[in-house]
Amino acid sequence: MALKCDVQYGKGSSGFKLTKVGVSGVRKPVLISRPGMTNPLNSVINCNIDIFVDLPAAQRGSHLSRNVEVLRMVADESTSKPVSSLESMAVDMVEKLLVKHEYAQNAYVKIKAEYFKANKTPSGRDTLEMYTLHAGAHGIRGGEIRKTIGVEAVGMTACPCAQETVGEMLGVEKPGFPMMSHNQRNVCSIILTTDVNQNIEVDDLIALAEKSVSTPTFELLKREDEGSVVINAHTNTRFVEDVVRNGLTLVVHNYSNLPDDTEVVVISDSQESIHKHNAYAERTATMGELREERAQNIPAL
Amino acid sequence: MALKCDVQYGKGSSGFKLTKVGVSGVRKPVLISRPGMTNPLNSVINCNIDIFVDLPAAQRGSHLSRNVEVLRMVADESTSKPVSSLESMAVDMVEKLLVKHEYAQNAYVKIKAEYFKANKTPSGRDTLEMYTLHAGAHGIRGGEIRKTIGVEAVGMTACPCAQETVGEMLGVEKPGFPMMSHNQRNVCSIILTTDVNQNIEVDDLIALAEKSVSTPTFELLKREDEGSVVINAHTNTRFVEDVVRNGLTLVVHNYSNLPDDTEVVVISDSQESIHKHNAYAERTATMGELREERAQNIPAL
Amino acid sequence: MALKCDVQYGKGSSGFKLTKVGVSGVRKPVLISRPGMTNPLNSVINCNIDIFVDLPAAQRGSHLSRNVEVLRMVADESTSKPVSSLESMAVDMVEKLLVKHEYAQNAYVKIKAEYFKANKTPSGRDTLEMYTLHAGAHGIRGGEIRKTIGVEAVGMTACPCAQETVGEMLGVEKPGFPMMSHNQRNVCSIILTTDVNQNIEVDDLIALAEKSVSTPTFELLKREDEGSVVINAHTNTRFVEDVVRNGLTLVVHNYSNLPDDTEVVVISDSQESIHKHNAYAERTATMGELREERAQNIPAL
Amino acid sequence: MALKCDVQYGKGSSGFKLTKVGVSGVRKPVLISRPGMTNPLNSVINCNIDIFVDLPAAQRGSHLSRNVEVLRMVADESTSKPVSSLESMAVDMVEKLLVKHEYAQNAYVKIKAEYFKANKTPSGRDTLEMYTLHAGAHGIRGGEIRKTIGVEAVGMTACPCAQETVGEMLGVEKPGFPMMSHNQRNVCSIILTTDVNQNIEVDDLIALAEKSVSTPTFELLKREDEGSVVINAHTNTRFVEDVVRNGLTLVVHNYSNLPDDTEVVVISDSQESIHKHNAYAERTATMGELREERAQNIPAL
Repeated sequence: MALKCDVQYGKGSSGFKLTKVGVSGVRKPVLISRPGMTNPLNSVINCNIDIFVDLPAAQRGSHLSRNVEVLRMVADESTSKPVSSLESMAVDMVEKLLVKHEYAQNAYVKIKAEYFKANKTPSGRDTLEMYTLHAGAHGIRGGEIRKTIGVEAVGMTACPCAQETVGEMLGVEKPGFPMMSHNQRNVCSIILTTDVNQNIEVDDLIALAEKSVSTPTFELLKREDEGSVVINAHTNTRFVEDVVRNGLTLVVHNYSNLPDDTEVVVISDSQESIHKHNAYAERTATMGELREERAQNIPAL
Repeated sequence: MALKCDVQYGKGSSGFKLTKVGVSGVRKPVLISRPGMTNPLNSVINCNIDIFVDLPAAQRGSHLSRNVEVLRMVADESTSKPVSSLESMAVDMVEKLLVKHEYAQNAYVKIKAEYFKANKTPSGRDTLEMYTLHAGAHGIRGGEIRKTIGVEAVGMTACPCAQETVGEMLGVEKPGFPMMSHNQRNVCSIILTTDVNQNIEVDDLIALAEKSVSTPTFELLKREDEGSVVINAHTNTRFVEDVVRNGLTLVVHNYSNLPDDTEVVVISDSQESIHKHNAYAERTATMGELREERAQNIPAL
Repeated sequence: MALKCDVQYGKGSSGFKLTKVGVSGVRKPVLISRPGMTNPLNSVINCNIDIFVDLPAAQRGSHLSRNVEVLRMVADESTSKPVSSLESMAVDMVEKLLVKHEYAQNAYVKIKAEYFKANKTPSGRDTLEMYTLHAGAHGIRGGEIRKTIGVEAVGMTACPCAQETVGEMLGVEKPGFPMMSHNQRNVCSIILTTDVNQNIEVDDLIALAEKSVSTPTFELLKREDEGSVVINAHTNTRFVEDVVRNGLTLVVHNYSNLPDDTEVVVISDSQESIHKHNAYAERTATMGELREERAQNIPAL
Repeated sequence: MALKCDVQYGKGSSGFKLTKVGVSGVRKPVLISRPGMTNPLNSVINCNIDIFVDLPAAQRGSHLSRNVEVLRMVADESTSKPVSSLESMAVDMVEKLLVKHEYAQNAYVKIKAEYFKANKTPSGRDTLEMYTLHAGAHGIRGGEIRKTIGVEAVGMTACPCAQETVGEMLGVEKPGFPMMSHNQRNVCSIILTTDVNQNIEVDDLIALAEKSVSTPTFELLKREDEGSVVINAHTNTRFVEDVVRNGLTLVVHNYSNLPDDTEVVVISDSQESIHKHNAYAERTATMGELREERAQNIPAL
């Protein structure tokens, strides 16, 4: 039986265009394969995917099942043909969306996923640490596709101001070692949006985010490692503002190849131990703006 | 003892400006009083507040405690001097932030809160329904302050396409009453950002959001009310696209007084009963753009 | 029209009894009034309520709308007749449930709510701090009703072991002031279940939970207060195990009036700054068991 | 340097025993391999793990890093030696915990994980559906280890009472096809705890949970499949009570091999489309109790 229900093709009830129509919160495992990847534990990545197109005023409904078809085509087929990265998968989906939705001018894919990466504690022990990846793509019919790649790394910050205040209050200004301060979980995010030809590795972004905080953190710390993490944190005290500026400095320095119109977002979200709320800092800018500010301020303090 | 720690005033370690620095996730109860408000149960609103300013390249740290001072000043003092609305409170905070942070050019306040409103079931029973409010303000030093006011209403949608398909599959096209379909929770959001002189009531926005879905929902439904809600939903079947366009139509019609540069966001997020993921539609536009589209499309279907 | 649908009264499709049937996640504001309460900001408490009865094998459905009726009766009528506490409200609901559901042998009410309480920083500044309340009741037809009252307080712990390790690693064992350590948010919960005649004040429970951690935390800390909080935390270092045992000691000491069959739960959940996961400790016991252990161990270290 | 910090071995500050001490919220990918598993997409399972032991009154601190060592030993080594199931991994961890924590009498492991399973739509299309797994183990020194295995499946329920009421209100009692009703997402959980020798497959538990609701749901539904899902749901209308009793019936029927002391939990949590809150039903019982009730009630309606 050929079902005729084509109410989606009817005229929109009001004639307004829609910016984004699609499905959100689709859970999908994806098989990834890259040169040098040897750990089977991060070969499968469980993604949370939002996938949208725009809709012209003249059409009542978008065909939402086509979005899921695109998603299945790319993600499920990764089992036989693994994808090389989440952001290249997002670009592939955007291209397919613009073919399937012939009425759409824009296609959007947004992916969030948990990611595990091997690391070493200060004393050299092996650990496997958890990160959150952001990936995405936005394509315009007949125009460019831009891709997004980003990371969230949970690290630690110790406060420089409380450290100085405590020294003053105790009348101990130069004890020869770092004074106590408050310290806490700090989630540092670095997210880049640029053209599809650029190559950015998530492992590099994670390294930059972990250099931006007072110290990275670890799942397993035996005694001397725990001591080292605490000493490192109090030697490298950081405000949320410092974390973001460190991240910006590292991004500008490490991605000299990326074009000026690359969009850069760096965020530091500190789950303050002395408060029940968070401290937060963010910079959103183009690479060109950051390069200009950097040029004006060298040598920085 | 006068503590000297002024590391915040030191030069930024890299010379980058920061877009937003402040505190997030502060929980605050606020006492509200408006003409006609008689129910003590919505006189206190528990807010989740983010409060930020920008930071120039030349300064290392923002004074985060000043943000909390502003917050306390306005929210805690509402006990003796109740605020008239969350968005006017946000505007007040933005003004105070620009005074306290003499180095800032921008101040931002974002509030999310649970709100209860009396309603009637189809048969006229009293109920008290829950909504989520959005409020905020953004001020530029020496420039304008704009305020945001919005609502999220949980309602119900029934699908027009599945209804038609089912009729076809059963060979019953005109049964004289609505055919079964799938139906589900639908969260409809309407959010407006405009200048501080405009007056917008959240209760009106809630009414528009609840008219946009297939039917509003209720905490208490005795038998005949439950039947009415089901019949209403299946008589007014709606795609997520329809919900957004209904919301846009109602906003354009009801707010003819708002200026063309008012920013309008309408979202429909449908927690699909037939899928494990959601269906989603959104329009983001200025009131001027919407008025123009409306003019071109009258008479709409 | 008298609607006849009585499918709920039909025989259960399988003849199994059910332990709990009802509604969950109902949001309800409640007006509270107690002697000495002067701050209008905590006179309204937004509750999240689960409300259940059991169901005999012979009956197909419970009447869920009766649960909402009970809830409305008690909560909405608090506007004219404020309730004296959440746990007394839960007891009242359980009594009404057993009347309305004539077939039920058990009734259960569980409430979680955000609560604000005035506090003072170390230097005496006023603050308003946020806590989570737990309240509940369980009644058996023809038997006793027992009520539950509990609190979650977000405080701070500093680690005693890392503090000692750091001193050893730096070769500084007695610096004359507390050595740095890692510190973090610690959520301490104290929850008591006892008979309806006992009187327990949530403000007292909050005080015990805040004495159990290294230091309470505050929304607003100017410089000297921030220094004091850090010094206090590092002077009173605590493992999660210490936090729970401090809580147990305080509960046993402060509630000598409570009967031996009072159930006590104390939990410490530490959002470790040096790890991405949490450290956790819990004791679940009767007051009688705790009293016996206490007697055997006096004098404790 | 041999660090001497042994504060954990000091006497507990109060002499109270602790029920559970350990780490919670550890994220770990685990490589799984079972006969017949051919899809690489569910060979890696990202787990959320809580891992605890008890602590005697005489010891101040538990050695939390040993819990993470056990976790790493089993989970990370799954890369070279894949585990056969999450619950057997939990049993393995409990055994290792009792060796490492020589002072502990009890060890507890609790795992929650996302799981993907291939399925077919009514018309036979391939889909990949998402489920939540529960696994765990509890061991007593010198005694038995018991393991837990469970699933949460998101399906759909349609309400039998509203369906009948609507028919009455419209004066259409036997239309020859199912009348409209309200329908919604229903999360059905089936969780079994039994001795380590029993063999239970999660795929079987998922099948039982999906048979208990009105219809399973699917990621991709083209028109005729969507119609079939809607018709099936309205043909198999179910209260939350029915869902739980269906689950109990299927468990008793399918697991005649499991011993009488097997603990059974079946839950139905319905995200009501006509309300903003959920409807909920639960049965917690031993297999022996369920068998007895079943015997008394055959033939059930």
